[in-house]
Amino acid sequence: MTTQMELEAKESPQKIELQLQENHATLSKIVSYIKKKKPAFALTMARGSSGYAALYLKYLLENKLGLITSSQQLSTVSIYQSPLELRHALAIAISQSGKSPDLCENIRYAKKKGALTLCFVNDVNSPLAKEAELVVPLFAGQEKAVAATKSFLTSLSAAIHMVAELAEDKLLLRSLQKMPQAMQNTLQVNSLSLIKAFEKVNNLFVLARGFSHPIAMEAALKFKETCSIHAEGFSSAEVLHGPFALVKKDFHALLFAQNDVSLTTTMETCKKIQKAKGITFLIANETHSKTIHACSDKVIIVPKSIHPVCDPLMYLQLLYPFFAKLAVKKGLDPDNPQNLQKVTETL
Amino acid sequence: MTTQMELEAKESPQKIELQLQENHATLSKIVSYIKKKKPAFALTMARGSSGYAALYLKYLLENKLGLITSSQQLSTVSIYQSPLELRHALAIAISQSGKSPDLCENIRYAKKKGALTLCFVNDVNSPLAKEAELVVPLFAGQEKAVAATKSFLTSLSAAIHMVAELAEDKLLLRSLQKMPQAMQNTLQVNSLSLIKAFEKVNNLFVLARGFSHPIAMEAALKFKETCSIHAEGFSSAEVLHGPFALVKKDFHALLFAQNDVSLTTTMETCKKIQKAKGITFLIANETHSKTIHACSDKVIIVPKSIHPVCDPLMYLQLLYPFFAKLAVKKGLDPDNPQNLQKVTETL
Repeated sequence: MTTQMELEAKESPQKIELQLQENHATLSKIVSYIKKKKPAFALTMARGSSGYAALYLKYLLENKLGLITSSQQLSTVSIYQSPLELRHALAIAISQSGKSPDLCENIRYAKKKGALTLCFVNDVNSPLAKEAELVVPLFAGQEKAVAATKSFLTSLSAAIHMVAELAEDKLLLRSLQKMPQAMQNTLQVNSLSLIKAFEKVNNLFVLARGFSHPIAMEAALKFKETCSIHAEGFSSAEVLHGPFALVKKDFHALLFAQNDVSLTTTMETCKKIQKAKGITFLIANETHSKTIHACSDKVIIVPKSIHPVCDPLMYLQLLYPFFAKLAVKKGLDPDNPQNLQKVTETL
Repeated sequence: MTTQMELEAKESPQKIELQLQENHATLSKIVSYIKKKKPAFALTMARGSSGYAALYLKYLLENKLGLITSSQQLSTVSIYQSPLELRHALAIAISQSGKSPDLCENIRYAKKKGALTLCFVNDVNSPLAKEAELVVPLFAGQEKAVAATKSFLTSLSAAIHMVAELAEDKLLLRSLQKMPQAMQNTLQVNSLSLIKAFEKVNNLFVLARGFSHPIAMEAALKFKETCSIHAEGFSSAEVLHGPFALVKKDFHALLFAQNDVSLTTTMETCKKIQKAKGITFLIANETHSKTIHACSDKVIIVPKSIHPVCDPLMYLQLLYPFFAKLAVKKGLDPDNPQNLQKVTETL
């Protein structure tokens, strides 16, 4: 049985290719608006998977532009109606459906208070797209499975595209062009060993640092949403400050090796889990495969890195079909998880 | 057996009383520095429990002052050495020990880049206290148990004290004076029903919205640290965007009722969990006890609310001794959880 979720996930490379072509002019315009505004900080608004895309955007904006980026607790406006000072803000909402009322209310409020408002949205006819001054369409196409896949990956690629243009980072822009092919190659990697390993697992940690931290969070959410497994995501440094007490014999952890200066600390955390007799699975790319084998018994290798910032997309491209298959193996329907609907509206 | 953790947690009311007296002059000076700086945004730096105290401070700064507050991913400076723009920033580190190198490096960098730097710290002779321009001592006294209790509660009270002074919120300042007595009264509440309920539980959600959201995160951390139970904290709105798929028959959730406009959405989430046949425990105060019983079978009532912003401290004052007792009941030593040490140093 091939699920809708797996089919949609596998469309991601072609959707990103389309997005890169279609958004060129839109992003040129948006970049000039942002440069003119000279924001003192950015503010992201998002929930669920989109919330982790917003965390990825935070890493990009801070690392590439030095622009401090705050994640908005939506209740601050939608429930408490706090008088936020937003004249110097760049407010960015991220959403597949663009329908949740709390998101619309926060972006409307930001606009009223003088922020430059922008949204990354898949449905360009949604209420959110109407509220924001600037719109970056995701071009993910229709997404029917409840669990987001291609809409998440296209949020990440759109975020890279915008920030690379803002930072005039030509190397990153060139790497981004190689992304659809690199992701297509990743789809050939076999995930059978992972399925076998996680079939009987009830709870685990998903860990990474830097640019892969947000996808550790997203992967943990997918374990919950589609496989009914209680996975929790952490930065591989943060997990040592308390949560590590859960690690004991046979406790599982899935880690992502980021192909940059953060690699050492992630490998150290991996070794600590092994020392506590936990079982580690490390996802890495060919570039570092030799070093990596020293710290984890179980390693899954994806094709060569095209740019450290792009690694997280390749890792998730491997994992999305894995989640769909693992769910089916467990007798679950990843397209229609219990208790969930495609569009969740909160106040 | 009375554990160090329980003894220390019970000292919190007197430590907060001491802190309120001792910090009066210090905070007057700090408040005038901050007002002079006119920060465009705030930036918090913290890990573990202190990270959740920083989230509480974010709710305070945004709701009471409209000052957008970003949580710093410490790797941005300590690993990636990104060139952050911080001239208009108020940078605030929170730590019990003041020893983690990533924290010190982030605050040193912020100072170098022109931010006004401030720390809330228990050890005023620590490296962190030496790096920051302004220091708010916690006055929690020595804390030996690995799991933070009184140092967390004194971080919260110090945060309220500073923000209430900044906002010139006289009602909140008066309420804060009543806090030690209110917390002392809370210590009389019986938590036996909670211990019985969670003795055999392996994983659960801890949920709240608004000012209680950070203590839901902290309570989830304590379940992990001291009781080896995989609890995960969420905002009671955010949990509906995916994680809710885990809720099924007999899945447990612990919720906090915030005595303000956020109450309705927390109660709605509680009802949704009941509908999915989960088991809910709701912690509320006398003020709303009638309404509350309609949405949860199991309710624990603490004394009357003195101010909605102060509710979270009373709830945690009830829970800390509960965690210590539950750990002992499970044959664990909450003073020395496996894999953890009192001071965790990360890069």
